[in-house]
Amino acid sequence: QKVMKEQLLELVEVPSTTSDGVQLTLAANISSLKELDAALHNGADGVGLFRTEFLYMDRGRFPTEDEQFETYRAVAQKLKGRPLVIRTLDIGGDKQLDYYELPEEDNPFLGFRAIRFCLERKDLFKTQLRAILRATAFGDVRIMYPLITSVDEVREANGVLAEAKKELENEGIEFRSDIKVGIMIEVPAAVAIADLLAEEASFFSIGTNDLIQFTLAVDRMNEQISHLYEPFHPAILRMIRTVAHAAQTKGIPVSICGEVAGDVNALPIWLGLGIEVLSLSAQAILPVKESLLRTKAIDSRNLLEGLFRCKSASEVRAMAGQFNMEAALAPGNVRPIV
Amino acid sequence: QKVMKEQLLELVEVPSTTSDGVQLTLAANISSLKELDAALHNGADGVGLFRTEFLYMDRGRFPTEDEQFETYRAVAQKLKGRPLVIRTLDIGGDKQLDYYELPEEDNPFLGFRAIRFCLERKDLFKTQLRAILRATAFGDVRIMYPLITSVDEVREANGVLAEAKKELENEGIEFRSDIKVGIMIEVPAAVAIADLLAEEASFFSIGTNDLIQFTLAVDRMNEQISHLYEPFHPAILRMIRTVAHAAQTKGIPVSICGEVAGDVNALPIWLGLGIEVLSLSAQAILPVKESLLRTKAIDSRNLLEGLFRCKSASEVRAMAGQFNMEAALAPGNVRPIV
Ligand SMILES: [Mg+2]
Ligand SMILES: [Mg+2]
Repeated sequence: QKVMKEQLLELVEVPSTTSDGVQLTLAANISSLKELDAALHNGADGVGLFRTEFLYMDRGRFPTEDEQFETYRAVAQKLKGRPLVIRTLDIGGDKQLDYYELPEEDNPFLGFRAIRFCLERKDLFKTQLRAILRATAFGDVRIMYPLITSVDEVREANGVLAEAKKELENEGIEFRSDIKVGIMIEVPAAVAIADLLAEEASFFSIGTNDLIQFTLAVDRMNEQISHLYEPFHPAILRMIRTVAHAAQTKGIPVSICGEVAGDVNALPIWLGLGIEVLSLSAQAILPVKESLLRTKAIDSRNLLEGLFRCKSASEVRAMAGQFNMEAALAPGNVRPIV
Repeated sequence: QKVMKEQLLELVEVPSTTSDGVQLTLAANISSLKELDAALHNGADGVGLFRTEFLYMDRGRFPTEDEQFETYRAVAQKLKGRPLVIRTLDIGGDKQLDYYELPEEDNPFLGFRAIRFCLERKDLFKTQLRAILRATAFGDVRIMYPLITSVDEVREANGVLAEAKKELENEGIEFRSDIKVGIMIEVPAAVAIADLLAEEASFFSIGTNDLIQFTLAVDRMNEQISHLYEPFHPAILRMIRTVAHAAQTKGIPVSICGEVAGDVNALPIWLGLGIEVLSLSAQAILPVKESLLRTKAIDSRNLLEGLFRCKSASEVRAMAGQFNMEAALAPGNVRPIV
């Protein structure tokens, strides 16, 4: 195990490209500066998802603009120009605050969460947006809104962002006005109107964890039915394809930031669909890179047709698993690690 | 109000067709024999959704096969040959049994429910299927599975149905072996694979209440966010269109059985998409019929293009409301009631 880990670390400086030369950006999901260090140690090409909840959960009150700014700036500076995607506050659901009572809910996953909370508490939202905007002076900082379900919500959020920009301008504080603003695609409605949302966003990030839960109506924390939580369900593949096509038609990039992004068997799906970025936990980066290096993008595209003919998740799993195994064994493939 | 109600009752015998002669079946949602009487009083063209939960909630134990059979037969006989769609047990979520402890769940809507329960408790499921099969000797009785998310589930449920048939056959009990078996489309995954599911089913019924909740990630009982529960959301329209197209390609009928089926402003959507059946609460049947009689299917189809260009629910609502008002005022339209 340890040898394996050291062998993987030899890949840190290796560019993340397929054996036929297609590049896939392997970014990191982080929640803190400490996790950033682990991500950089594993060669992350930037941060695809900075979860800002910990800033709100770590103390007995809402963080001030300056407190947030200091953290965002520190992360941006450590990234030395590599992208930093900051997700705005995604509280609610299973994430609560000690000092602010959210309503008791029968189904918190289908409740008052994320962008819904922020659009109700625009004061708190604007504070965060100001802090993020200020950090743009120190790196390639981008914003991402979670749990978007409609064009209206994006526009309303962007209205608050415009106010924040105007305020900073009036105060003479430095920031980049052309900050990229992306959307998490993690609610089935967002998939169904992905073409409309693509008009409103600089990029998409598919949050597979929530998307799978809503699409299959399965709370994956619920042991009684967690076997029904199935990233390789044909419905999930189709939804990801819909989003990828909508984004490509509009010319904006798509990333995948759920757990399944770290499953090497899912690699041909991303490559086949032309996904450009995976956002991964630090430990998943090098195993995915190792698999990527010996996979051909052209073979992935060919495989995809077969995957989309499958009628069940178990068929998809079997076919994708077989593909990954064959890629590992094929002669002539780049295989820096056995 | 009372005069209005009496005027509506004059429509009971009037066939439910548009002013340009397109027929729409107006069936009823019922939970009991008493509700069946109300439905028939309002001229229901059959029962599109018989919720069988009350049979299980009304007593201190699971109902026997004979108890169920007696009820299903009584409903079938009262319908005198009109269709009776019996939904198999849809327990869980917000529907609990006093005498059987379902697990405590953090998100019961995304939990152990409906067909998931039945496929775990195949003994109880088979008892219900036997009772339904026996009722086929007394009317046009059909089966419908709730909360389907995959082809596998349909096949597994059909496996239990095949066993039930074989048992009845061996026991020499009369039933119709060619009973129609339909699927509720109420989970986003089922929409995404509607073409695959259409191969497995005799009909579809779109359960809009749950479908909207999952698609928008909104528990409509949650007051804090119930304003986000929006049947006219462009994503919902598109999903219904996807299901309608899949069904039409395969040649199976589609009904709508959620609350929005009773909203007269939604009529042009159903007519435009070629939906064949609405299943309504008893009180909604005649108001919908009144609106139907003065609506043109051809105008609805034309309107639909406009509805599908809308980027927000409020635009859809405004356009559909305007259409319904104009249909009410247009000279030459059949308007039996002012
Ligand atoms: Mg999420
Ligand atoms: Mg339901």
